[in-house]
Amino acid sequence: MLDRVSRLNADYARAIDDDRLEDWPAFFTDPCLYTITSADNHRQGMPAGVIYADSKGMLKDRVAALREANVYERQAYRHVVGLPAILGERDGAVRAETPFLVVRIMRDGTMALFATGRYLDALVEETGVLRFRERVVVCDSSRIDTLLAIPL
Amino acid sequence: MLDRVSRLNADYARAIDDDRLEDWPAFFTDPCLYTITSADNHRQGMPAGVIYADSKGMLKDRVAALREANVYERQAYRHVVGLPAILGERDGAVRAETPFLVVRIMRDGTMALFATGRYLDALVEETGVLRFRERVVVCDSSRIDTLLAIPL
Amino acid sequence: MLDRVSRLNADYARAIDDDRLEDWPAFFTDPCLYTITSADNHRQGMPAGVIYADSKGMLKDRVAALREANVYERQAYRHVVGLPAILGERDGAVRAETPFLVVRIMRDGTMALFATGRYLDALVEETGVLRFRERVVVCDSSRIDTLLAIPL
Repeated sequence: MLDRVSRLNADYARAIDDDRLEDWPAFFTDPCLYTITSADNHRQGMPAGVIYADSKGMLKDRVAALREANVYERQAYRHVVGLPAILGERDGAVRAETPFLVVRIMRDGTMALFATGRYLDALVEETGVLRFRERVVVCDSSRIDTLLAIPL
Repeated sequence: MLDRVSRLNADYARAIDDDRLEDWPAFFTDPCLYTITSADNHRQGMPAGVIYADSKGMLKDRVAALREANVYERQAYRHVVGLPAILGERDGAVRAETPFLVVRIMRDGTMALFATGRYLDALVEETGVLRFRERVVVCDSSRIDTLLAIPL
Repeated sequence: MLDRVSRLNADYARAIDDDRLEDWPAFFTDPCLYTITSADNHRQGMPAGVIYADSKGMLKDRVAALREANVYERQAYRHVVGLPAILGERDGAVRAETPFLVVRIMRDGTMALFATGRYLDALVEETGVLRFRERVVVCDSSRIDTLLAIPL
């Protein structure tokens, strides 16, 4: 399972970093939970994050909005993903936690640390494919860029 | 062995990044060697690093001091750990070398590269659990933050 | 194959980060293709990158030039390499794509993100050893340091 989750994370990151955003919703089940929050908010049990989606339709809407706004094209991202920790099974889903770091590359070539944190995932198998039933993205920094629109 | 060392490194980093510092001494044997040094000092064979501990008691003392000083709470860390190289066995311990990168996240949300380097480890098994008999943390930069107090 | 490519990438990065540049050409076949380019150039199909070499001799010349210029000694590098994606086989070579991030550590101890991107590799086996027949280094940023001389 560790190897499968590692590969899933690598595929997920590659889809985003290659700007294949249209492939992104397919990594999730439907319904699903996808949310981005901060470590502080997460610790305090505050529910709604910066970004919240609970269906594939909402994920697709987000991609459409990003394409419309054209923001995403002006920059690129590079995810570096660590080794997942497999935390067991609950409610029929495998629980995993995976650290990540994302660098943003602006159109003028400057690079900056954009986000670090960990993915808290609930993973299920659908017709042989591992998908996210839940992906809670917990950013270490509470100062999450308000322009934050790309998937982490 | 590669997979076990990878998982051990991931667990170690997660304990620190989750602020479970009290779990940190358990990753070591007793006695042990834990030291942080710079690449320059290491190359020149200079022994004492910025931080030096040779027993579990000293590791626990360090954690107690950190909790006392309350420094650690004001910031967070995110380790990204690469694939270990297994370098063979010596004196009954597996030798491994693993690259790392640590980002520091300040309370105001700013992020900065804090340290990069490599772990030089001697690993032994104790009742089925892999532990560090030695972990020499060799930082690439010779300018190691004097506030450096958290475990790397 | 995934494990072998992962280990090869780790060994490759370690040779560079340890300043064992003389070991670097041995990671390639002869002839070979080694080139560094930007994502923009790569997307537009522009062939010549910042750095181009098509034989072991050219790789060795580059190392000799670096040693001569003495530039490399004044700084250090730390690669963090992600999980490869194995993309299948073509022309008798395994195709793989691997994300990377490189930090540069200056002699005064300052650290900076130096490059992010992905390796596009064609890998073949020579007498049991996996080597790069092609390694195209695609940097995310189009502003590649003109001092860029070290292997990525």
